[in-house]
Amino acid sequence: MARRVAVLHGPSLNLLGRREPAIYGTATLADIDARLVALGTTLGLEVECAQHNAEGALVDTIHGWLDRVDGAIVNAGAYTHTSLAIADALAAVAVPYVEVHLSNVYAREPERRRSALAAGAIGVICGFRGESYELALRALASRLGATDTAA
Amino acid sequence: MARRVAVLHGPSLNLLGRREPAIYGTATLADIDARLVALGTTLGLEVECAQHNAEGALVDTIHGWLDRVDGAIVNAGAYTHTSLAIADALAAVAVPYVEVHLSNVYAREPERRRSALAAGAIGVICGFRGESYELALRALASRLGATDTAA
Amino acid sequence: MARRVAVLHGPSLNLLGRREPAIYGTATLADIDARLVALGTTLGLEVECAQHNAEGALVDTIHGWLDRVDGAIVNAGAYTHTSLAIADALAAVAVPYVEVHLSNVYAREPERRRSALAAGAIGVICGFRGESYELALRALASRLGATDTAA
Amino acid sequence: MARRVAVLHGPSLNLLGRREPAIYGTATLADIDARLVALGTTLGLEVECAQHNAEGALVDTIHGWLDRVDGAIVNAGAYTHTSLAIADALAAVAVPYVEVHLSNVYAREPERRRSALAAGAIGVICGFRGESYELALRALASRLGATDTAA
Amino acid sequence: MARRVAVLHGPSLNLLGRREPAIYGTATLADIDARLVALGTTLGLEVECAQHNAEGALVDTIHGWLDRVDGAIVNAGAYTHTSLAIADALAAVAVPYVEVHLSNVYAREPERRRSALAAGAIGVICGFRGESYELALRALASRLGATDTAA
Amino acid sequence: MARRVAVLHGPSLNLLGRREPAIYGTATLADIDARLVALGTTLGLEVECAQHNAEGALVDTIHGWLDRVDGAIVNAGAYTHTSLAIADALAAVAVPYVEVHLSNVYAREPERRRSALAAGAIGVICGFRGESYELALRALASRLGATDTAA
Amino acid sequence: MARRVAVLHGPSLNLLGRREPAIYGTATLADIDARLVALGTTLGLEVECAQHNAEGALVDTIHGWLDRVDGAIVNAGAYTHTSLAIADALAAVAVPYVEVHLSNVYAREPERRRSALAAGAIGVICGFRGESYELALRALASRLGATDTAA
Amino acid sequence: MARRVAVLHGPSLNLLGRREPAIYGTATLADIDARLVALGTTLGLEVECAQHNAEGALVDTIHGWLDRVDGAIVNAGAYTHTSLAIADALAAVAVPYVEVHLSNVYAREPERRRSALAAGAIGVICGFRGESYELALRALASRLGATDTAA
Amino acid sequence: MARRVAVLHGPSLNLLGRREPAIYGTATLADIDARLVALGTTLGLEVECAQHNAEGALVDTIHGWLDRVDGAIVNAGAYTHTSLAIADALAAVAVPYVEVHLSNVYAREPERRRSALAAGAIGVICGFRGESYELALRALASRLGATDTAA
Amino acid sequence: MARRVAVLHGPSLNLLGRREPAIYGTATLADIDARLVALGTTLGLEVECAQHNAEGALVDTIHGWLDRVDGAIVNAGAYTHTSLAIADALAAVAVPYVEVHLSNVYAREPERRRSALAAGAIGVICGFRGESYELALRALASRLGATDTAA
Amino acid sequence: MARRVAVLHGPSLNLLGRREPAIYGTATLADIDARLVALGTTLGLEVECAQHNAEGALVDTIHGWLDRVDGAIVNAGAYTHTSLAIADALAAVAVPYVEVHLSNVYAREPERRRSALAAGAIGVICGFRGESYELALRALASRLGATDTAA
Amino acid sequence: MARRVAVLHGPSLNLLGRREPAIYGTATLADIDARLVALGTTLGLEVECAQHNAEGALVDTIHGWLDRVDGAIVNAGAYTHTSLAIADALAAVAVPYVEVHLSNVYAREPERRRSALAAGAIGVICGFRGESYELALRALASRLGATDTAA
Repeated sequence: MARRVAVLHGPSLNLLGRREPAIYGTATLADIDARLVALGTTLGLEVECAQHNAEGALVDTIHGWLDRVDGAIVNAGAYTHTSLAIADALAAVAVPYVEVHLSNVYAREPERRRSALAAGAIGVICGFRGESYELALRALASRLGATDTAA
Repeated sequence: MARRVAVLHGPSLNLLGRREPAIYGTATLADIDARLVALGTTLGLEVECAQHNAEGALVDTIHGWLDRVDGAIVNAGAYTHTSLAIADALAAVAVPYVEVHLSNVYAREPERRRSALAAGAIGVICGFRGESYELALRALASRLGATDTAA
Repeated sequence: MARRVAVLHGPSLNLLGRREPAIYGTATLADIDARLVALGTTLGLEVECAQHNAEGALVDTIHGWLDRVDGAIVNAGAYTHTSLAIADALAAVAVPYVEVHLSNVYAREPERRRSALAAGAIGVICGFRGESYELALRALASRLGATDTAA
Repeated sequence: MARRVAVLHGPSLNLLGRREPAIYGTATLADIDARLVALGTTLGLEVECAQHNAEGALVDTIHGWLDRVDGAIVNAGAYTHTSLAIADALAAVAVPYVEVHLSNVYAREPERRRSALAAGAIGVICGFRGESYELALRALASRLGATDTAA
Repeated sequence: MARRVAVLHGPSLNLLGRREPAIYGTATLADIDARLVALGTTLGLEVECAQHNAEGALVDTIHGWLDRVDGAIVNAGAYTHTSLAIADALAAVAVPYVEVHLSNVYAREPERRRSALAAGAIGVICGFRGESYELALRALASRLGATDTAA
Repeated sequence: MARRVAVLHGPSLNLLGRREPAIYGTATLADIDARLVALGTTLGLEVECAQHNAEGALVDTIHGWLDRVDGAIVNAGAYTHTSLAIADALAAVAVPYVEVHLSNVYAREPERRRSALAAGAIGVICGFRGESYELALRALASRLGATDTAA
Repeated sequence: MARRVAVLHGPSLNLLGRREPAIYGTATLADIDARLVALGTTLGLEVECAQHNAEGALVDTIHGWLDRVDGAIVNAGAYTHTSLAIADALAAVAVPYVEVHLSNVYAREPERRRSALAAGAIGVICGFRGESYELALRALASRLGATDTAA
Repeated sequence: MARRVAVLHGPSLNLLGRREPAIYGTATLADIDARLVALGTTLGLEVECAQHNAEGALVDTIHGWLDRVDGAIVNAGAYTHTSLAIADALAAVAVPYVEVHLSNVYAREPERRRSALAAGAIGVICGFRGESYELALRALASRLGATDTAA
Repeated sequence: MARRVAVLHGPSLNLLGRREPAIYGTATLADIDARLVALGTTLGLEVECAQHNAEGALVDTIHGWLDRVDGAIVNAGAYTHTSLAIADALAAVAVPYVEVHLSNVYAREPERRRSALAAGAIGVICGFRGESYELALRALASRLGATDTAA
Repeated sequence: MARRVAVLHGPSLNLLGRREPAIYGTATLADIDARLVALGTTLGLEVECAQHNAEGALVDTIHGWLDRVDGAIVNAGAYTHTSLAIADALAAVAVPYVEVHLSNVYAREPERRRSALAAGAIGVICGFRGESYELALRALASRLGATDTAA
Repeated sequence: MARRVAVLHGPSLNLLGRREPAIYGTATLADIDARLVALGTTLGLEVECAQHNAEGALVDTIHGWLDRVDGAIVNAGAYTHTSLAIADALAAVAVPYVEVHLSNVYAREPERRRSALAAGAIGVICGFRGESYELALRALASRLGATDTAA
Repeated sequence: MARRVAVLHGPSLNLLGRREPAIYGTATLADIDARLVALGTTLGLEVECAQHNAEGALVDTIHGWLDRVDGAIVNAGAYTHTSLAIADALAAVAVPYVEVHLSNVYAREPERRRSALAAGAIGVICGFRGESYELALRALASRLGATDTAA
């Protein structure tokens, strides 16, 4: 049976493609989600995507993964750098996750170099715009032992 | 007439009993609430309980205490350590409150030793799992001059 | 055609006039909003006002300004000091804004002297209670080239 | 057989009731000790109390608990914030203990928010004046499985 | 009788309009002073202006306000960020004042975000170039209960 | 013509597979290099690999990329966290590079969370053991517009 | 009736005159005490002196001042820089005191520039070797309104 | 021949007796200077006094002491805490000096606990209002070997 | 004549062998002292040993070395990290000493990496449990020019 | 036509040759100025020199360079390390300048290693006593394209 | 069979005896190595010694210990304080080692009090010049259970 | 006999003229060396030049100066900011040296403002590109008393 992977996008990522293209690129969130679902099919993974601007809604979504989701890709956006609440929710559901960012957070303001979520993650991928998610999905597939149905 | 005490639980406490039992114990939030209501009856206090994952919902709940609640027990979870918004809401309604935690926050990561809420509280109780709340209710009862109807 | 200015109030500002009058004054938020709408009319500006306790709702409101609002006045309250999410939302919609505070944040606790929003603002006005907003509206009017219809 | 609980008071607590009543209340240390012994009887615990102004005497007293005391309540006063020697002594005798304070240490000077003892404790209770000790005794009783003989 | 307001400009503000127009705008200090005197007349305030490059001369000028001036607008320029001497002088004469800056100090180097004067001020206004002073004068007029003779 | 990608491994990576397998996995460096060369062929990239324990030899190798290499994957190991010399060499040759790590550096000691090289990189990938390199090679291929000959 | 002044010397001051004369001078503690008693007689003050090496003994001595001593001179030596316990004892007995040091603590190691006792003192005198105490006694005499019987 | 002692007062001390009497007392600077000259006569010292609000004027005055003055009393006011220029001037003329303050600088804001001048002084006296200067003059007299003509 | 070496043990070292053997080993303090006396005889040194839990008693013991002891071995335990009083006492008696620790203090909590005593010592030896003392005695013997009578 | 270079000396440099020769050398400021004028002639530069003890006078002098001076050498002495006002004045007149110091500021107290002026300078030269200025003049000559008339 | 112990000396230790004898003593590195080999023979240990100025060469040497050396003595000189690369190499080969220094690093500049290697060591010995190594060899012998053939 | 001066260039300086000309200029290292040798001849100095990318090779080169070189010019590039090993080597050979940089290190990233080498240098020259070295050579010539053979 296919493994299930949840993708979670944080605040203002709904504006993707409409805001600051020099930093974030021109693909919309729908474009990214569609590519992830397609790549998931190739890798034998069912991919579900969600986006929320509110920290509490992100926590709610993560709670919904309990006993149902096998792996996750988390781009908590601005909450990445400070949110112990999201870190606690991720620890509570104990789903292995990869932290991703569109931009290279190391090349931006100092407060964006700190992550409250990274210590609990399998790993971190940042700087490759929309492709960051796809690399994360490949990494999760390896970790979950998913079969690349295209191979 | 009985004094009214509000109990407020923060993010991911809804998962209590299902998550990290080594740190948080096996009682569910419903168990804890039931014990608090029962102990409240003994102490002559009406106890009402609420839980929210969102910082804004916690602020809303606190606003609802204005001119209606005599004391409160606040376990703001991960928001404890950073939320000026919750601290402001508590100062705005001017309800005396006790800060509680299930775990001994001093024995965990350094960022959990800092509280944005403690300076405005009557006092702090942490480390006794679900019993932290019961001790807080006893302390509030003393403070509010409630009569222990069992005495 | 009249320029449109959005006014955004953050957590607990709904209690204005009911809480800590020594710091915040006795005017209610409705009073302030009414005065801003009236002053806006004088300055040739359409003013719309909103208040939210939740960080995510503030982000949603800011997103709603995209391609529709010409300038903004933002009092993010306690979120001012830490919210990268609100800062990101403001950068995303690229609406020029003035940061305001009712109280003089420099005369309060040290953590209130830091702003995550100020660097992206046109300017900052604090300490004049409700009048802080009116001064901000005048400044925005100048910036937007609005005509003072009373002149 | 009854469990034995030691209560240890640190520097200047002998002046309790004679000093700064606005912060520390009007009960004397003898009053507090008497109430603890009585509550201990109710809870099936033998309670012994000691007070010292010298760090070394506090260390000596803690050493005396070795293989003889089942639990402890420690208010190390000003030494709480800096004394690695007391922390070492508590670790050496391996008696489970609760840290207590009369005042809410979070509402005082910053250096009183730091504790050298809390990480090794079961939990911390502060801000309830003399009642802090009684709450701690109840918590210890639960932990030690003492029988409430009044129940 | 008209209230008297003093306006004080700090180091290098005499070069206004001749230096770094991208940051400070093209109006000269004489332009700004003339507009303030005119606006003062409208608001029923007598406005007097001074500029000095020397910290000591700024202190002398402030001393000259004692028992003679009802309110002040202070742009201490580079001294804002470090001068306890100017802060002491302002405290000594006990004249209510507004701190102003031409540029948004929050958007510049970190050392310009710190103010030695702001804690003692009524409020702070920055970022609106020459108009910062005019907004401050309006705020002072409200505070001093001056009558807007144009109303 | 095929694009050329250089892979650079830093100190003690020659021991890979022989040291601390719990952190670094059991694959040897030769295994990793072989997989990268193979994947490079698939992606239309010529891959060359080098490993050095000395900071100066890493600088020399980077100099050798000048006007010859189109992209790079850099795992500078322990030098990552402090070496301005390697950062300078990378800036000097102006080859776009991805920073990789075998382990999740965020889950280790604090000094390993800081990188002297990340700000100049396209992006960072860490935590996926040997697969970190493969993900980086895919990301570089996209960036360099290489053709996936397997597609 | 004569006012009573207590003089308290901290650790290693018993060795005065025998240790490091370049820093502390050649007078013994007995010399200093004798001069203070004599000067006290002249100023209409009864002077009592004590020295202890133990922090706890210093606390005990301070407790003994309660309701009996009108002013104090405190040279807590090395404990000056860290002892909250001595600061608490001084606050508890509420005796006005002057902090003194033989050496100029500002010209020594950085950790000697910090005092836990100075904020609660009337004032501080340091750097005049044994004469520091005599100046302090004169200052206390003025403060206590003692009559200079030699005048 | 009488030794010469210079007394130097810094910014805003000219307002003494007119400003913040709760902190600084009610004596004027002229009162203090007159008492110092009189006490100097008693001690066999010629005392000259000066006050300046400008850091540069204080430096000029100190330069004027070169080869003419035997000791000095320096209250540099707000410049005490930051002025390397005054420290350099004092080092250049190599006149032994005592640093004095009217208030207990340790009981005020943290930035007033730091002195740029103290390390080069004989000693420091603070907290005794105008009497701080007199104690300093006595200390200087001892140091300079002046004869107390009243003895 | 034989040189005299004093060995001083700090707080809780009396429990050695009874506490935390994983860190401190199973030898008792009496075992260690007996081995040091025996080794001293071999090295031509008279060894005397003392242990105290109180900082003041450690200071007293050090004072007793004055003009009588030729070298010392000091394990001040938890006081090592903060005690300026012990550092002052050691400086006062001017006896050359070696600082020792049973455990490797660098491998424990950060506050145990700091020593108030090490700068004044000949050298430091830590991590070899009871043998740390024996190595220190050998080092002192070399320094004091003692003759190894077994040689 | 000859280029004009201004040389500006800060506080206490007027005492040069009379103060602390071990640090600053024995040449007077007049000697240095004379040598600079002579070297300027050789290099085809008109050199003008000024010295002030007051920060404000230094700012005034810099303002006087506007549209008249081609390059400058600035030794702001103690103000170097803190004066944003001088940095602002230099930025305002936009004259290229070299920062110089007589002593090697890196070998002195830590606060002398920080410069408020260096970031805006062409470069910095320190440690060569009076020759520091001459090297700076040569560097400025190269930068200004002056002709060495002696060549 | 004899156990093998490697001794590793870091940068500039080849100059021993030729440089700064006040700090490092007059013995050459050859002298020290010869004494260690001789002492090793006595203790039943084969001792091999190496010295390198390059961090990479030190890493190479440590790699050479893998599966061949039983214990090590490491004086990494200046690299001690910063080199994560050497720390990683030591962790990789998993050879127990003692960190040594010739001088008492605690009595030198602050940056020399920090060690990147100490946390992974058995223990640390510093301050006894060449004898530091001999003490370390004795300690290693005990740890490795070597037989003192001279006993 | 001519004095000998060594010039040492650090990592990536071999790329000079080929890398980042906006910061470092277009002259190659060979150009700079040739100019220094020529200027040395004029000043009566024999100049030898070396460049290395490896920290250890720089240490080796410095060791080679012992008893052979009279002065040195050191541009340690990126190692300047962190290398205690190079600082130790320079202290060991005791050759007077000038620290130089091509760029104005104060106008770059904060970590480039710190130098491990400057405190031991005669002085520092930075910001004049290749001419920095020539100014340093002139300064060294003065210091070494070399004769300008062109004079």
